[in-house]
Amino acid sequence: MDQVNQGAAPMAELWRGGVLESTHLGHAVICDAGGIVAQWGNPDAVIFPRSSCKMIQALPLVETGAADAAGLGEAHLALACASHQGAHLHVEMAGRWIADLGLAESDLRCGAHEPADREERDRLIRAGSAPCQLHNNCSGKHSGFLTVVRHQGWGAEYHEIDHPLQRAIRAASEEVTGETVSGWGVDGCSAPNFAFSVAGLAGAMAAFARAREGAGARESAMARLVAAMARHPELVAGEGRACTELMRAMGGKVAVKTGAEGVFVAILPERGIGIALKALDGNARASEAAVAALLVRLGALDPAHPAAVRRLNPVQKNWRGIETGEIRTAPGFG
Amino acid sequence: MDQVNQGAAPMAELWRGGVLESTHLGHAVICDAGGIVAQWGNPDAVIFPRSSCKMIQALPLVETGAADAAGLGEAHLALACASHQGAHLHVEMAGRWIADLGLAESDLRCGAHEPADREERDRLIRAGSAPCQLHNNCSGKHSGFLTVVRHQGWGAEYHEIDHPLQRAIRAASEEVTGETVSGWGVDGCSAPNFAFSVAGLAGAMAAFARAREGAGARESAMARLVAAMARHPELVAGEGRACTELMRAMGGKVAVKTGAEGVFVAILPERGIGIALKALDGNARASEAAVAALLVRLGALDPAHPAAVRRLNPVQKNWRGIETGEIRTAPGFG
Repeated sequence: MDQVNQGAAPMAELWRGGVLESTHLGHAVICDAGGIVAQWGNPDAVIFPRSSCKMIQALPLVETGAADAAGLGEAHLALACASHQGAHLHVEMAGRWIADLGLAESDLRCGAHEPADREERDRLIRAGSAPCQLHNNCSGKHSGFLTVVRHQGWGAEYHEIDHPLQRAIRAASEEVTGETVSGWGVDGCSAPNFAFSVAGLAGAMAAFARAREGAGARESAMARLVAAMARHPELVAGEGRACTELMRAMGGKVAVKTGAEGVFVAILPERGIGIALKALDGNARASEAAVAALLVRLGALDPAHPAAVRRLNPVQKNWRGIETGEIRTAPGFG
Repeated sequence: MDQVNQGAAPMAELWRGGVLESTHLGHAVICDAGGIVAQWGNPDAVIFPRSSCKMIQALPLVETGAADAAGLGEAHLALACASHQGAHLHVEMAGRWIADLGLAESDLRCGAHEPADREERDRLIRAGSAPCQLHNNCSGKHSGFLTVVRHQGWGAEYHEIDHPLQRAIRAASEEVTGETVSGWGVDGCSAPNFAFSVAGLAGAMAAFARAREGAGARESAMARLVAAMARHPELVAGEGRACTELMRAMGGKVAVKTGAEGVFVAILPERGIGIALKALDGNARASEAAVAALLVRLGALDPAHPAAVRRLNPVQKNWRGIETGEIRTAPGFG
């Protein structure tokens, strides 16, 4: 295992007026059942998956039977894997979910932040209302956490590192990556986030891609979560966002998920392939361009689809709509 | 001259839970009258200064006599060099300036964008009003441009590359950097932005640092602009912003200016020293940490000052106020 700054390779570039203005380095790995099939940068670089591993963090929700006992549908599983933008759709669904559990918004431990969704943000400002924890992009994940906790009769502080839920997530993470955690940190939503190599995370995504319902509790849970994400792209992020637009562009055949600090993963069930990548500097424009490039390479994404073009080669426009530059994947990447 | 991705060195890091999560590379140069006195990365890397060169773009405003003819004060010169956040203070001052010229907001060519200032942003949303061009962070620069254009009797499309104003800015840029431009692009505000090496930009900042009023038109203009910036930190950016807080922390003795895509410059008149730096990936958290580190190295900034601590070693807190990590300058930088 190496530090993330070891062996990063060029991933994406910003050009302006024919001059290279900025460059993003990073690491990317494509895995299948046999292991690594393609790599850029250093597969052994240790990264925090951040929100890209929400489908791993949701495994106990399905595997304990908590999801079925609570009567959750596929849409709930998608929201549990989401970094949503706090649009009315997301906030209302998380609120009903918590209420159906007989719990309150105050039982969440994710904290409140202003929603990324403009309509909901402006509604709050006009109403003079503060955002609540349901607006947090992780409120679906935390609703899933609460569902497990209530089902198992565990304690309320479910975000603490020694809580049985987090111990279960750590165990599941080590099982699907095939690695021992390389460290852990506190995420933006207060939940622990476990560090693994890029190759370990890509291997986990390949395991999700191979999973089939009926092939045991683990595989069934994996397959249900992948299907939920791929079939409900609007719940996993929101209008205009990379995850939502890319999943729609691939017609529900592929699940993709972003994570803070430049992480992106993809799960391709038809091919049994998983992707994980990290922009060394944490920039999403690089990780979005990179994941789109790898999906195109694998034949899963049409490079001419507007959602692909917006990530692969987005034209930068200024405040008067004038084209000023463009993002490109770096030579040799993808 | 080299492309920006040649020879970049570690500049800043994000740590989480004792694990290195993200790394920023970059280039930085400190110059005095004799040339480069310290460097990290590649001094010959070509960069767009973006908004960090607004004091260069304001030279024609002073040198043509337009500023004095229009009765502009030191505060106007500071606003001409600003990337302000569109607070009421900035918007009102730019609006009065334009009106005093007998011109209208529609004569600006910077475009409109939502102000970064939360109070003004929320006021607009509550009022159902769209932001106007006065809210653009460059509206002071463009007010300066209009002042020159009216004084010289030049055409209205002052942002075009062949307009006499932009030709004058290009000539001044080449004179103060001692370089021929390495290319140009369109900036966010539609004005041309000329590319130079990091060393050229640092040399230009050293020239600003050495300039004294009364030593000719160029030096007088340079000295007036530096004094205006250092004495009006609230106009150059805004509350909470790095430029404003760092200049306040240095008690008006140093002028600093950020530019988009990870650029920062500093002008130290007492030492005759200039700094220029660029984070390769364009991230401001890296350029802010880096400029603070170099100002500390030069003895201009107290590393214990809260404004310095917030840039040098900012603690990352999550939505519940829990400490999750920290930014550090990279080993060997600063």
